[in-house]
Amino acid sequence: MQTSSPLEPVQVQIHLAERSYSISIGAGLLGNVSTYQQLPPANTALIVSNTKVAPLYAAQLQEALQARYSNVLLTTLPDGETYKDWPTLQLIFDALLSHGCDRKTVLFALGGGVVGDMTGFAAASYMRGVPFVQVPTTLLAQVDSSVGGKTAINHPLGKNMIGAFYQPQLVICDLDVLQTLPTRELSAGLAEIIKYGPIADMNFLDWIETSLDVLLAREPAALAHAIQRSCEIKAWVVGQDERETGIRAILNFGHTFGHAIESGLGYGQWLHGEGVGCGMVMAAHLSQRLGLVEKSFVERLRQLVARAGLPVKAPILSAQDNAGRYLELMRVDKKSEAGEIRFVLIDGPGRAVVRAAPDALVREVIDACCA
Amino acid sequence: MQTSSPLEPVQVQIHLAERSYSISIGAGLLGNVSTYQQLPPANTALIVSNTKVAPLYAAQLQEALQARYSNVLLTTLPDGETYKDWPTLQLIFDALLSHGCDRKTVLFALGGGVVGDMTGFAAASYMRGVPFVQVPTTLLAQVDSSVGGKTAINHPLGKNMIGAFYQPQLVICDLDVLQTLPTRELSAGLAEIIKYGPIADMNFLDWIETSLDVLLAREPAALAHAIQRSCEIKAWVVGQDERETGIRAILNFGHTFGHAIESGLGYGQWLHGEGVGCGMVMAAHLSQRLGLVEKSFVERLRQLVARAGLPVKAPILSAQDNAGRYLELMRVDKKSEAGEIRFVLIDGPGRAVVRAAPDALVREVIDACCA
Repeated sequence: MQTSSPLEPVQVQIHLAERSYSISIGAGLLGNVSTYQQLPPANTALIVSNTKVAPLYAAQLQEALQARYSNVLLTTLPDGETYKDWPTLQLIFDALLSHGCDRKTVLFALGGGVVGDMTGFAAASYMRGVPFVQVPTTLLAQVDSSVGGKTAINHPLGKNMIGAFYQPQLVICDLDVLQTLPTRELSAGLAEIIKYGPIADMNFLDWIETSLDVLLAREPAALAHAIQRSCEIKAWVVGQDERETGIRAILNFGHTFGHAIESGLGYGQWLHGEGVGCGMVMAAHLSQRLGLVEKSFVERLRQLVARAGLPVKAPILSAQDNAGRYLELMRVDKKSEAGEIRFVLIDGPGRAVVRAAPDALVREVIDACCA
Repeated sequence: MQTSSPLEPVQVQIHLAERSYSISIGAGLLGNVSTYQQLPPANTALIVSNTKVAPLYAAQLQEALQARYSNVLLTTLPDGETYKDWPTLQLIFDALLSHGCDRKTVLFALGGGVVGDMTGFAAASYMRGVPFVQVPTTLLAQVDSSVGGKTAINHPLGKNMIGAFYQPQLVICDLDVLQTLPTRELSAGLAEIIKYGPIADMNFLDWIETSLDVLLAREPAALAHAIQRSCEIKAWVVGQDERETGIRAILNFGHTFGHAIESGLGYGQWLHGEGVGCGMVMAAHLSQRLGLVEKSFVERLRQLVARAGLPVKAPILSAQDNAGRYLELMRVDKKSEAGEIRFVLIDGPGRAVVRAAPDALVREVIDACCA
């Protein structure tokens, strides 16, 4: 690919039964008035952001939206996964109702995955559904929450337990915002990008291996390609199974172990992408122990995850019965059925499968990966 | 119609884009194992009820469900519209998560409209959607929440502001439960039944006028017909406009004034159906003042509403500026757009229209109806 040519915005079309929308990927989109010209007419727009992102980009977005909406409101939430809860969600409803926002009000999610998930669920639920636009400001959110319409908040007993499938009107992936992203969050985004290799496209995995240095250097054209290809693969999977009754579950590769880590350490200790990075290595290990892939494949994935700046050694979650604690946490995962953990495993390079595994084998993998 | 013949259960089919389901109307359905035989397989069922209904019917339902589900759980909520809020909804999520309920768990709403709305919203949101069954135990819930998939909770600043469109798998209208219904709630249910006359079917209004005494005497065949015809009309309207972007709004005849009364007096003072009963008379008045219907039509409706045991005189909501208070409350209604109140009016007998009206005229109607 040519990384030196000027970047034209790329559009990825998401085709879903209910409705379609597009993802715009490019530089300088967020503050550009023309980015928003296809949106449905309304009097009011509410930008939802957080204390970290709002000071950086809210004014720019607000100005661009003022060309289209007579009232542009801003609600700033506290930052972090610990605030992905009902009391914080309530702040969005309070803002909407105290300003008398009607059913046509458009919500704009300006921030990472937490802001996107909460704004999406608020949009799904406010008056039983108002339009919303995703403006993801992290690499992870750009590749992950852009496609699929999953919105949710956490419950004290489990992550993402309360939510809705709800599609945005438009997703804007502005490459400029990635330049200010902390390195740790860049790596977290790369975890979700790497994921698409093992589960669906080994050519893409080859490309990521080759391009990892320019990706880490935040070269816009490389980032644009990584985001585009990730969104395309995700759209292809989601298009076959919008409500996750079957194949869509493969997108959770690395997430079963990853969620256990995130939840076991307490939300906010590891980033979601860090949990997924380490979780992919663990799931690959489990796949190998089940005879589905070679040891060399596990090693290749482990090296790439490590090069991306992600943890590959799993944390100890309990001094007494570490593997038991992992198993306990994984059993409350949404993919579990009747207490049986459903693992997303690699069934040969580029192909994923969802299946159960014997507890003894899972314990071995946990012991090996925590050592 | 023959009111003396033995009652066969009646099925009303609801056809919607996403999926279809049926409403069963008959005597003795709730405790009958065969009522539930078409439901999707699952290990666990959670019955959600309230402190008033659970002692009457939960054991019966639980026993019938035990033939089909290995775990049948029960969550009992406090009774009343004041508890249609987030903390009470949370009790359902707590029950689901503390019992490790998975995505196949079926929720059963056993109670009136509040239990139905909350259980429906919990089902829509738990793990982004689990199946649910409505077992409405009030006449109002049988004709109102059976069709349409509206679920919601209240927000301190407005009624039904947070919710989802979410369809049940099955609705069971057991006529036996209506025999224990307090008279005031029977009347409240009749309000929603009467509604279908003016907005859609004057023959049905004739039938209600003729049958009101047997309806008030809770004659099962008459109740079955009233429920069936109400559900059919509602299904016909909702089928054209599932998400209430147009014609569906006519189902809110009487609700704009009614909600103002409910909310202005404080939820729980007037029953929802009482607000709707009085609200229909007010909306008919407004229609007449706009030249849409004759005075005789308003009087006919007023008499029927009064005969049904419903209030026809509107309450004073403010000693200072009563009409102003009504207007203020109606402006936060979900149907409002940019602060303009959208009234459902009668545009000739059997035909409804949604439109705005001059404040001065609305004030006249409020003054006349409160006097």
